[in-house]
Amino acid sequence: MKSPAGLLLSAIDIDRASPIPLYRQLYLQIRKQVLGGRIQGGVRLPSTRTLSKELELSRITILNAFDQLIAEGFLASRTGAGTYVSDEWENRGNADEQQRQPPRLSDLSQSMLSLRSDHFRGMSYADWDPAAPVSFLPSHSTYDAFPQTVWRRLMNRHLLKPTKAMLGYGELQGLQALRTAITEYVFDARGIDCTAGQVVIVSGAQQAFNLLGMLLLNPQDSVWMEDPGHIAARIALQAQGAQVVPLPIDEQGIDVEQGLRECPDARLVFTTPSRQHPLGVTLSYARRQALIDWAAQQQSWIIEDDCDSELRYSGRLLPALYAMDQMARVIYVGTFSKVLFPSLRLGYVILPHALVEPFCTLRAVMDRSPPTVLQATTADFMIEGHFLGHIRRMRALYQARQQALVEQLEKRIGRFFRITPVEAGMHLIAWLPAGLDDAAIARDLAGHNIHTYALSDYCIGRTLPPALLIGFAGTPEQQAAERVEALARALREMGHLPAAT
Amino acid sequence: MKSPAGLLLSAIDIDRASPIPLYRQLYLQIRKQVLGGRIQGGVRLPSTRTLSKELELSRITILNAFDQLIAEGFLASRTGAGTYVSDEWENRGNADEQQRQPPRLSDLSQSMLSLRSDHFRGMSYADWDPAAPVSFLPSHSTYDAFPQTVWRRLMNRHLLKPTKAMLGYGELQGLQALRTAITEYVFDARGIDCTAGQVVIVSGAQQAFNLLGMLLLNPQDSVWMEDPGHIAARIALQAQGAQVVPLPIDEQGIDVEQGLRECPDARLVFTTPSRQHPLGVTLSYARRQALIDWAAQQQSWIIEDDCDSELRYSGRLLPALYAMDQMARVIYVGTFSKVLFPSLRLGYVILPHALVEPFCTLRAVMDRSPPTVLQATTADFMIEGHFLGHIRRMRALYQARQQALVEQLEKRIGRFFRITPVEAGMHLIAWLPAGLDDAAIARDLAGHNIHTYALSDYCIGRTLPPALLIGFAGTPEQQAAERVEALARALREMGHLPAAT
Repeated sequence: MKSPAGLLLSAIDIDRASPIPLYRQLYLQIRKQVLGGRIQGGVRLPSTRTLSKELELSRITILNAFDQLIAEGFLASRTGAGTYVSDEWENRGNADEQQRQPPRLSDLSQSMLSLRSDHFRGMSYADWDPAAPVSFLPSHSTYDAFPQTVWRRLMNRHLLKPTKAMLGYGELQGLQALRTAITEYVFDARGIDCTAGQVVIVSGAQQAFNLLGMLLLNPQDSVWMEDPGHIAARIALQAQGAQVVPLPIDEQGIDVEQGLRECPDARLVFTTPSRQHPLGVTLSYARRQALIDWAAQQQSWIIEDDCDSELRYSGRLLPALYAMDQMARVIYVGTFSKVLFPSLRLGYVILPHALVEPFCTLRAVMDRSPPTVLQATTADFMIEGHFLGHIRRMRALYQARQQALVEQLEKRIGRFFRITPVEAGMHLIAWLPAGLDDAAIARDLAGHNIHTYALSDYCIGRTLPPALLIGFAGTPEQQAAERVEALARALREMGHLPAAT
Repeated sequence: MKSPAGLLLSAIDIDRASPIPLYRQLYLQIRKQVLGGRIQGGVRLPSTRTLSKELELSRITILNAFDQLIAEGFLASRTGAGTYVSDEWENRGNADEQQRQPPRLSDLSQSMLSLRSDHFRGMSYADWDPAAPVSFLPSHSTYDAFPQTVWRRLMNRHLLKPTKAMLGYGELQGLQALRTAITEYVFDARGIDCTAGQVVIVSGAQQAFNLLGMLLLNPQDSVWMEDPGHIAARIALQAQGAQVVPLPIDEQGIDVEQGLRECPDARLVFTTPSRQHPLGVTLSYARRQALIDWAAQQQSWIIEDDCDSELRYSGRLLPALYAMDQMARVIYVGTFSKVLFPSLRLGYVILPHALVEPFCTLRAVMDRSPPTVLQATTADFMIEGHFLGHIRRMRALYQARQQALVEQLEKRIGRFFRITPVEAGMHLIAWLPAGLDDAAIARDLAGHNIHTYALSDYCIGRTLPPALLIGFAGTPEQQAAERVEALARALREMGHLPAAT
C-alpha cells in the first residue's frame, strides 16, 4: 500500500464492537477523508480485493460503502480502471487555512466590532461558566434562593401532553395569559393602566432595545443617553446609526436641561428612571415631567427601562413614566431576568396603541415568540401569587446582603473605598481615591479571580471619579467577611492597601 | 356628593372579602382614576369624614391611602383647604385618543410595514390558536407524535436544583453539549466536518437570517434569491436594504447561469438546496458546484438553509453545500422547529472560522443565548439517540401521510388538481387549471376553514402557473379521506368542481 490512497486508507479504523454497521463506518471514514482533502480528486482507490484483505472486511461491505459514495458523488467508477475519488474533490484542503484575508462584512457589523469593548462581551458572558465566582458581579441574582420546586411543579403541568398549543408556533405578541398577568402586575406595582393588547413578550430587555431602535431610529438620528449609562442599550441604538447625546446624571437623575440646550430635537431618550444604571439614582418627579413634556412637544420617544424597580430597599418608588405620560410617547421595557432568572429569556414591552402593529410586524420579521412552555410557567407563577412573594423575599434578602457587605467593606477597606449603598438594585458603588484608574484596578482584581466592574466603562463623554461596581446579591451574609477579606488581600497584593499587620 | 370628585369617588367599589387591604384597594382605585384622567388635576377630594361615611371605611384607612397617594405625587394636601388631585394631573385624558397622527417610525420600519404581506404574518401566526385546524398548513408537524414522555423526563433532570449553570446567563455561542451534539449529527447526516466552536445556537432559522443579513449586507448590496422562494428570509434580507435578484427554479434548482448573466457581483445567495422552498426540487450536484465556484471567485457568501433535509422520502440526499465548499464561503443554517417542534425556538448556524467572532459580537448586541434548560434537554435528546429515532419515525409517518393524501386528492379532486408529490418536506404542490387565481382560491378556502397557501405568494418576479401548497404532515392517514372530502365540498361550493351527483 504505497499509493497516497493506500496510505490514507490504512489510517481507517473500523470498530467491530460499534452498533454502526461496518459498511457505514467505512463510508463515513472515506467521506471524511475526501471532504477534508486528505484524499484528493483523481486519486485511485485500492481494489476492493486489497481493501477487503487489508481491513479484514468482506467485499460486499466494501462494495456497499463504495456504492453509496459513488451515488453521492464522492467516488467515481471508471469501467475497467477501478474506483477514483471524483475530480470535483481536487485541490481540496482546509478551506479556512486558504482564507487569509479578512472576511467581507457589512459596515454595520464592522462598526459593531469597533463599538464592542471587551467589557461589553464580558458583562454578559465571561461569567457564564458555572464554576466562575459571582460574588461581586453586578446583575447576578441568587440562584440558590430561586423556588425551583414550585417552578418545576408549574412547568410539569405544561409538559404532560404534546399539544399544538404548547409545541406549535406561539402567538405573535406572546402568550395571552402571560400578557394579562403582566398588565395586572404593572398596574398594581407601577401604576400602568394598559391592556394585554399593548404588551409584547420578548426574549429579554436587550431584544426590546434592538427592536425599538430599528422601529424608531434612522441613521444619524440623535438619542439622549444617560452618562454614565447602559452599555448594551447604547450599542444597540448605535448599531442603528444613532448619534448619542450623552447627558450627565445628578442627584435627580438625567439632566434634561442640558438635553434641551444641546439637542432639543433628539428623536428618542433612553432612561432608567427607577434605578439609574449604573449610579442608582431615582429620577425625580420634576425630571420625569420634564422628559414627558419634551417628548410630547417634539413628538419624540421615551424608552423607559424600568430595571430593578422591583428591588427597591428604601426611598420612594415613583409611578412609571409610562403611567404619567398623557401623550403616548413612552415605551416601557420590563424583564424577568433579574427577578426570576436570566436564562428564562423573557421580557416585555408595553407600547402606545399606535406602535403595537408596527412593532409586531418588525418582530415577526426578526424573531418568533419565545418558547410557550416558559411563558405558560411564568404566567402561572404570577397568577398563583409566587411572583410577588418571590420579589418580597429577594428584596429582604438583598437588602440584608447589601447591609452585611457594606459593613464588611467599611470595616476592612473603608479607608480605601468610599461606599455608596444603593436604594435599589443589585450593586453598590465603591468610590476609589482620586487619580486611580478604575478599569486597571478591575482588571487586576479579575486576575485575582475577584470580579467587579469599573464605573469608567459606563461613561460616554464624561469623566467621573474612579469607582467600582460591586454586586451584593450573590454574596450570602455569612460569607461577606470572607469575600471582603479576599478582596482586601488582593488590594494589598496590588499595593493599594498597606500590608496586614 | 355633587362635585366631579364626589361623582367619581362614588364609583369606587371596595371588596371587603378581598385579601387586598382596604386602604390599598382605595389607593389603587383613586390612582387609577387619576391616571386615567377621570379625576383631573386641581379637583378637590371629599373630606376624609365624608369619604369615611360614604364608603363605610374607617378614617385611618382613608388617611393611609391618602398618605401614599400624596407621597407618590398623585394628591396634594393644602393646609386648611383639604386634599386635591395634584396639578400635574390636569388635562389628562386617554393619551392614545389624543394621538391622531400616525407615529414617527424609522424608514426601515416603514419599509418593513410595506414589505409585509398579510400572508407573511399569516404564515407563522394566524394559526397559533390551538383550536385552529392545521390539516393542510405547510410547516406544521404532527404534535401528537412528539415523544413528550421522554422529553419531560430529560427536561426534569435539569429542573431539580436551581443552579447558576441552568439559571444564569448562558454561554454566548450556546450550550457546549448541544453544539457538540450538533457537530456529530451534521457530520453523520450532512457530511459537515466542523468544530463546536463554529456552531452558534440561535432562536430558530429566522433569527439566523436576520443576523446574517446584518453581518454581511450593506444597503443596496445585491442578493440572489430563489424565485419562488422563502418569504420570511427575503424580507429579513430586504430589511437590511438588500436588492433582491430573483433567479428562477428549474428541475435542477436555482438557475445559477442567470445569476451570472444578470448580476455576477451579488454579495450573497440565499438557497434551500436540500428541498427548494417551496417547490421541493433538490439542487443538483453541478449547480452546487457552480454556486460554490461563483462564491469563491467573487468572495461572496452562500446562506444554505438546509430546511427539511431530515425529512427526505425518496431520491438522493446530497452532502451539504457547506461540506462541499473548500473556500469557506458557505454559512449553514439548521433548525429544530420542524424535526422537534416550533415553540422550542432553537436553531443553529455553522460558520466559517473567520465569521465566528463577528457573528458572536453581533449576536451579543442583538440577543442572548436561548434558555439553557431547553438547550440542555435538546442536547440530551440527541446524545441519547432519541433524535435520530424520532426523525426516522417522522419520516416514515409523513411519507405514509403524503401517500394517503395524494391518493385521496387524486381520487376526489384529481380532475381539478394536478398533484406533484414531494421527495422531501411537509407539503405537496397541487397545480390548478391555468388561468385561475391561486391567491383568491386560498383565501376562499380559508373562508371555509380550510388552510392552504398560494404558490403565487412565494413568487418575486416570476409568474408561475397557479398552485396551492398543501401540507400533509398534520393529516393522519385515516383522516385523509374525510379532510379531502371537506376540501372537495368547499371547491364545489366555490364552483370549481361540479356539484356532487
